[in-house]
Parts: sequence; C-alpha cells; structure tokens
Amino acid sequence: MAKPVPEPDQALLDDLVVANRVLYHKNIVDGLGHVSVRHDKDPQMYVLAAERAPGLVRREDLALYDLDSNALTLRERRPYNERFIHGEIYKARPDVHSVVHCHTPALVTFCVCQTPLRPLYHMSGFLGRGVARFEIREVAGMTDMLCSTPQLGAALAKSLADKQIVLMRGHGATMAGQSIKHSVFRALYAALNATMQMDAMRLGEVTYLADEEAMKGMEINDRFIDRSWSLWKHEAMGPS
Amino acid sequence: MAKPVPEPDQALLDDLVVANRVLYHKNIVDGLGHVSVRHDKDPQMYVLAAERAPGLVRREDLALYDLDSNALTLRERRPYNERFIHGEIYKARPDVHSVVHCHTPALVTFCVCQTPLRPLYHMSGFLGRGVARFEIREVAGMTDMLCSTPQLGAALAKSLADKQIVLMRGHGATMAGQSIKHSVFRALYAALNATMQMDAMRLGEVTYLADEEAMKGMEINDRFIDRSWSLWKHEAMGPS
Amino acid sequence: MAKPVPEPDQALLDDLVVANRVLYHKNIVDGLGHVSVRHDKDPQMYVLAAERAPGLVRREDLALYDLDSNALTLRERRPYNERFIHGEIYKARPDVHSVVHCHTPALVTFCVCQTPLRPLYHMSGFLGRGVARFEIREVAGMTDMLCSTPQLGAALAKSLADKQIVLMRGHGATMAGQSIKHSVFRALYAALNATMQMDAMRLGEVTYLADEEAMKGMEINDRFIDRSWSLWKHEAMGPS
Amino acid sequence: MAKPVPEPDQALLDDLVVANRVLYHKNIVDGLGHVSVRHDKDPQMYVLAAERAPGLVRREDLALYDLDSNALTLRERRPYNERFIHGEIYKARPDVHSVVHCHTPALVTFCVCQTPLRPLYHMSGFLGRGVARFEIREVAGMTDMLCSTPQLGAALAKSLADKQIVLMRGHGATMAGQSIKHSVFRALYAALNATMQMDAMRLGEVTYLADEEAMKGMEINDRFIDRSWSLWKHEAMGPS
Repeated sequence: MAKPVPEPDQALLDDLVVANRVLYHKNIVDGLGHVSVRHDKDPQMYVLAAERAPGLVRREDLALYDLDSNALTLRERRPYNERFIHGEIYKARPDVHSVVHCHTPALVTFCVCQTPLRPLYHMSGFLGRGVARFEIREVAGMTDMLCSTPQLGAALAKSLADKQIVLMRGHGATMAGQSIKHSVFRALYAALNATMQMDAMRLGEVTYLADEEAMKGMEINDRFIDRSWSLWKHEAMGPS
Repeated sequence: MAKPVPEPDQALLDDLVVANRVLYHKNIVDGLGHVSVRHDKDPQMYVLAAERAPGLVRREDLALYDLDSNALTLRERRPYNERFIHGEIYKARPDVHSVVHCHTPALVTFCVCQTPLRPLYHMSGFLGRGVARFEIREVAGMTDMLCSTPQLGAALAKSLADKQIVLMRGHGATMAGQSIKHSVFRALYAALNATMQMDAMRLGEVTYLADEEAMKGMEINDRFIDRSWSLWKHEAMGPS
Repeated sequence: MAKPVPEPDQALLDDLVVANRVLYHKNIVDGLGHVSVRHDKDPQMYVLAAERAPGLVRREDLALYDLDSNALTLRERRPYNERFIHGEIYKARPDVHSVVHCHTPALVTFCVCQTPLRPLYHMSGFLGRGVARFEIREVAGMTDMLCSTPQLGAALAKSLADKQIVLMRGHGATMAGQSIKHSVFRALYAALNATMQMDAMRLGEVTYLADEEAMKGMEINDRFIDRSWSLWKHEAMGPS
Repeated sequence: MAKPVPEPDQALLDDLVVANRVLYHKNIVDGLGHVSVRHDKDPQMYVLAAERAPGLVRREDLALYDLDSNALTLRERRPYNERFIHGEIYKARPDVHSVVHCHTPALVTFCVCQTPLRPLYHMSGFLGRGVARFEIREVAGMTDMLCSTPQLGAALAKSLADKQIVLMRGHGATMAGQSIKHSVFRALYAALNATMQMDAMRLGEVTYLADEEAMKGMEINDRFIDRSWSLWKHEAMGPS
C-alpha cells in the first residue's frame, strides 16, 4: 500500500464511464450492478466505481482496488458490497480484463430455471463455450444472496471456470471479457439471446448454433465490436 | 379540526412529489394510482395529493388528511376516491409510513389468477413475507371495484394484515413500507418480479428464494435503497 | 351541399388534434389509423383528418364530412379510404360522438383468434357490454380487408350493434364513445386489457369481472376521464 | 472501373440515409444490419454505407458498389463484410431496387424454428407470397454464419427466389422491395407480424389471411407507403 499507485490510461477510464452508462441505457443494470476493468499498467489492480448507480457514474467515482478488493483510492467512499466478484475473477482468470455484474430480468429468468441458455445466432456465439451456474446455497447455505465476501467471490470465480458468463441462482449474472467492450457486448447479447430463446422455445423446436458455428461466430464478432460500441456510446453519452 | 395542523417536513414533501413522478416514470401508475406518506410530526395524519395524475403532481397538490381520510388542507380540491386505502392502513399498521396504490399491468395479471407471486431474487425478498389477497366480493358483493369507503379501506387493511403487499382482484395492488423510498421500491420490484415470474414459469421449474434467503435479501436491500433512489429521482426529475 | 357548413367548436377541434397525438404516443395507431368526432352543431356531420399519419395531424388537416362520408371541406386533399367506418357508425348510433379505428398489435392478436376479449379489471369495464366481431369475408368475400366503401362501413356498423368495440378479423379494431375522451380511453384500455389477458391466460385460471362489476366499473371510470386526459395531453403535446 | 461513375439522384441518397435511421429507430437493426438501394442511373450498381452503425450513417458514408460488390467509391473505407447479400440479390432480381438485412429479435425467433411466418393482417400481406428460408449449413457446412463471400450471397439470393423475404437460420432476415420505402416497410411489418403471430399462436387457433386477401392487402398498402414514410422520417430525423 505504501508503494505509489500507477495512474490508469485516461482513455480506459473514459471507456469505463461509458460502459457504466451503456449498461444502464440498455437496461442491463438498474440502480444496482457494476462493471470493472483490470488496470492496464498493473494486472494486480482493477478499476471500479465506488458506491453509485451505474447510470450516474462519472470519472471522479472510479476507484482502484487490489485483487483482494481493498480500496487503494477513494477510501473515504463506501465500496460496492460485491466488489469481490471482480477481484476474485481477475485473480483466477489472467485472460479476463473486464467484468460485468447485473440483475438483468431476461437473465434472472434463466438463473432460476435449469433450462440451458444456448446461442441462437452468431451474435451470441460466445455462449457456445457454455454457461456456468452458481448456487450460493452449496457454498454458504442460507444467505442474502450477495457475493459480499472474498470467499463467496472466489467460489463464484471457481464456478465461472473458463466460461464467459455465469448465471447466479436467485440473483443475476456475471460476464467476463478480454476488454471493457467485450464484457459489455456479452452482457447485451446474453440478455437479448435469453429473451429470444424464451420466445423461440414456445414457438417450436429450436435449432441452436453448432459448437463450431458458435466459436466462429464469436471470433468474427469479437473483431467488429467497435462498430457497435460507437453506437452505444452515442446513445448513452450523446454526440461526441 | 380546530387545532392547528403541523407543517410536515419539507424534504418529506419533496420526496413525496418525487415518488409520484418516479412511479409514473417507471410505469407503475398511469393517469390513476397514488402514493402517500404518514405525517412525520403527527402519526394521526397523512399526506396525499388531491385529485391529479401522479405524473403531474406538484408540491401545491399535496393535502393533509386525518386517518379517517378527511381533508385537513386543500379542502376545496376533490380528494382521491380511494384515499381510504391509505388512512385505514395507517390506522391498522403503526409500522407503515408510506403506501402505494396502483394498477400496474404485471401485477393485475397476478390479481386475477390464483398463482402465488413469489420472490425470484434478492431484490424482491420482501415478497417472502407472503403476498396478501383482497376479494372485494367477499366484503361488499357486486361493486365498482374501488375501495372508496372507510369500510372497504378497513377491509383491505385487514386483508393486508402484516404483509407488505396486497393483490386486489380485478383492480390492482397496494404496497406498504417504512418510508416513501421503501414503498416505491416495493412497487417497482413487485412488478418486475411478476414479469420475470411469468417468463420463468413458462421456461421450466422455478427455484424461488427460501424464506430465510428472502428475509436476508430484504434486510440488505432495505439498507441500500438510497443508491437506487438517486437514480430514480434523476430519471424522473432531471439533474438536481 | 350548398348550405353553409357550420364551424365546429374550436375546443372540440383542439381535442381532436390531441386525440390523434395521444393515440400515436400510446402506440394505438402507427402511420395509419384515425379518430373522428361528430360535429357539435350538426349531428349529420363529422370531423376527421384528411390523409396524414395521426402522429403528425394538425388543426389544418381536419376536414368535415357528411354521414355518407363526402368531404365538405378540404376537398382538394385525399380523404382516408376507410372514412366510411366513421360515417356509417354515426348513422347507426346516435349515442356515439367519437370513433377510433386502429391496428394495435395487442388487439390484432385477438382479432385473428376466437378467444373472447373480456374485462380483467375496472379500467376496462366497458368490455363488459361485450366485444363485437366483424368478418369481412361474410360480407364481401375476398377483399383487401379495408372498409373502403359505404357498404362495408355499414356492415361494420351492423356488427358493432350496441357494443363499444368491434374486432375486425385480419385487420384491427374500432371503438365508439360518447366523446373523444371516451373513445380514446377505450382504445387505450382495450389494448392494455388484451395484453394483460394474454399473460393472465398463460398464468392460470382467470377471474374476469362479473357483468355487474364491469358496468359499475365503466360508470365510475367514465366520470373520471379528465384526470387521465390531462396526463395524456401533457405527454403527447408537452406542457400547456 | 476506368469509366466515370454516374452520380445517383440526391433525393435517393437522402432517402437511404433516412432508411438507415428509421430502421435503427424502429429497432429493426442495432449496431449491425444494413440497407441498400440500386443505382437509379445504372442498374449494375448499388449504394450502401461503408462500415458504420446504421443509426449513425450520414450522406458521406454512402459508397457505390458494382454488382460483384466491389467498391467504386470510398475505397479507403472498410466495406460491410456482408455486402454480397445486396449485390447478389440485385443480380438475380431485376425487379428489386432495395434490400434490407437485419438481426431483428422477433424475426430471429422464426429463423431458428420451422414454424411458418404467415400474414395475420393486411399490413403484412407481402408475406402471402411466402417466406423463403436459408440454411447456410447446406451450402457451406460449419461457418461463422455470415454471407461474406460472393458464393454465399448468391446462395442466399437463390433461396430468396421470387419472394420478398428470406429467414436465415441462426442469423437474421433479408427483405427485398421495389424501392427503399418498400423494403423498409417490409422489414417493419415482418417484425411486427412475427411478434403478433407468437402471441396469437399462444392465444388460440389463428385465422391467417387467405392468399387472395394477402395479395390484395399488399397491393393497397404498397400504394400508401408515403403516409407512413412521412411519420418514420419525422420520428428518426426530427421535423423537416
């Protein structure tokens, strides 16, 4: 703690503010929910807003945390109770550079049922790697459902394993990505796929993407996120 | 009536205006529906707008009522026909300091079916105490469905008993809370839970919160309402 | 036609513009659909916009028609093809002073199925008088589905009989009211009831309003439309 | 390529910008999806935006392509990967002057099920000619689902045959029209019909338009698109 904390890249911080606003604008988060990014200069740190609704987050609300989720800056502000979700996933998954946690209704629906969430189209090919599930009762019995301790965060990270998304029973979902744009993309299209899948399952027998189609679809979409990001940013922040 | 009426706290009145606007902005109420708060200086009085759509309510529309729902101020304005819902609940429930009454579509759906409304996730843990039901036919036979007399208000309060919410057959719902923010929170998340539950029930077998999870979820959420309230206020009223 | 055409009340024309905008704002109509009012000074005439999307209708688009749906003013403008819906209902129903015709999705759903649309709550008590159905095939065989002749308009009016609303197979719905505000109210709440009924029917066995409850509900709501109208006008037209 | 490229009509280019914005505003496209128009002076060319989200497309983003989908202008910009959808349909269908490609959720639902998309009402009469289906696996095995080669574009055009719309399994839909307004109209009402059909099929037995009704409905609606177009333009671009 005594060593000086390196300043994250300013564009990264700007993108994190945009991500907060986009997730709010797209109804992925409401008053609660959060998105973080791993520090670009020190992988043992991450950036996350201090307590504030994501739709209202500004640059000055962003705080640095170590991977045990101790605040390194803005220590006078109350941190999110569930910041351990972020820290523990960054510990367990060096490939992950951004994490979204949300209570999106379309995903909560899948969280409380055993019906698998599966990719309907190329936009949600990332679901093809499989969707993890987290049952907090198995880890901690009767709780308030929140991952508000290092132990619960670590258990969630263990459930996530090498997947991109984990559905948390009676709570919500957590997505991982190689960048802010990727974790936001996955949050948006996981929710959209969930909505469409509920409709499709009522309409008839569903043909899901084959594993190979899903992987190839993910690869191509992962390379074209900027086109969508420009739009999302414009929608959430106004003309730049 | 001859004794002077104490002035409620100004911030409380401001919050009641905000609550009206938030409930409208979130589609909990439309042209009809209302929200009240118990007087902070005299528990035998409550504040409720005189007749006006909640989305248009201003400070000057707020009137004071005694618990028999007689207007103490703004007597020249027509009061809501169903103000007795508020007065009679305040009489029966000293712990309640705010009441919302609404015809929210997702809740009306549950009002006309016997399927229980149950908590899917921590945000709606308050449903874990159980959801009351009110059948006006049992009390008054064939009516216009409105609780527009002291007797009907009292019957509704009796149905509510020690619960936080009562579903009124063929009509709508009424929520109670320990503060304005709590009753608004419950209206929003009861509706959201109802929407998700309808989807989840079609998707597969649903795992609801256990009673203990629901209680713990309610306790933690009851302590963090300010984060959501700031957002709702911003959405409904613009930047402060 | 040679006799001078009396000028309708200016407030009535203003209300008709508002009604066009409200129906658009509330997604009852899209680029198509229309609303008319019977002339306040001559019951043998009605006011209806000349061809223009309802969301864009202004005072200068309003034309007068006789009950055979001949244009008395704005004759240089193309009239709506289906103006006969209005003229023929005014002929057949002296009690009707306003008519809405729309293709609202929630109502089209009921138009193409035989499932009865029934009142779930007091707001849609007007459905308790029953919902008429119109099958254009019975009248005219294979058509483009439009009521674009006096004969088809008259057949529709006959199907409507003494009801407040008629569902037109493969087309849309038409509502009648004793005033502009009443026909708009019925369009809005018929659509809302349809949406809720679809949800409720999937949720469990539905308790509909009893006939007497529906009639009493309609009576009370018919008297309190101004509260909702103020809101709808504000939403559609901005602060007055 | 050496010959000079004729300048398209300016109003046509303006309409193409409007079409991009309308499709975005109506949620037919999101960050992805596109709409093109055949060149009015040379049927061997078409106009399509270079890579950019349709909701942000401006006049300066519009590029000319030959029917092999080689860029004739704006060659320094990256073209859409799936421009071959447009070029190959224009090759195969001289009657087609505009093409929309989209991933609209309501249509994706039908893309992954075998349930036929059928016209419920006159507005979607164009579906009466039948809805084509494209299974990319039959043509190219395991892919990323995109029609990003001339061969895949040609296979899609072959599947479309003489229809107005083709549903692409695991991907989205493509609509054809005799003008920009017609292809946009078909995208909007195909999606709306899909949403309503899902509801109607759950509600009861559905009466679809007879073939003759569908054809007559299409003919009448094809003649009245300007009324809707004026509204869509106003909504997407503001008052003109």
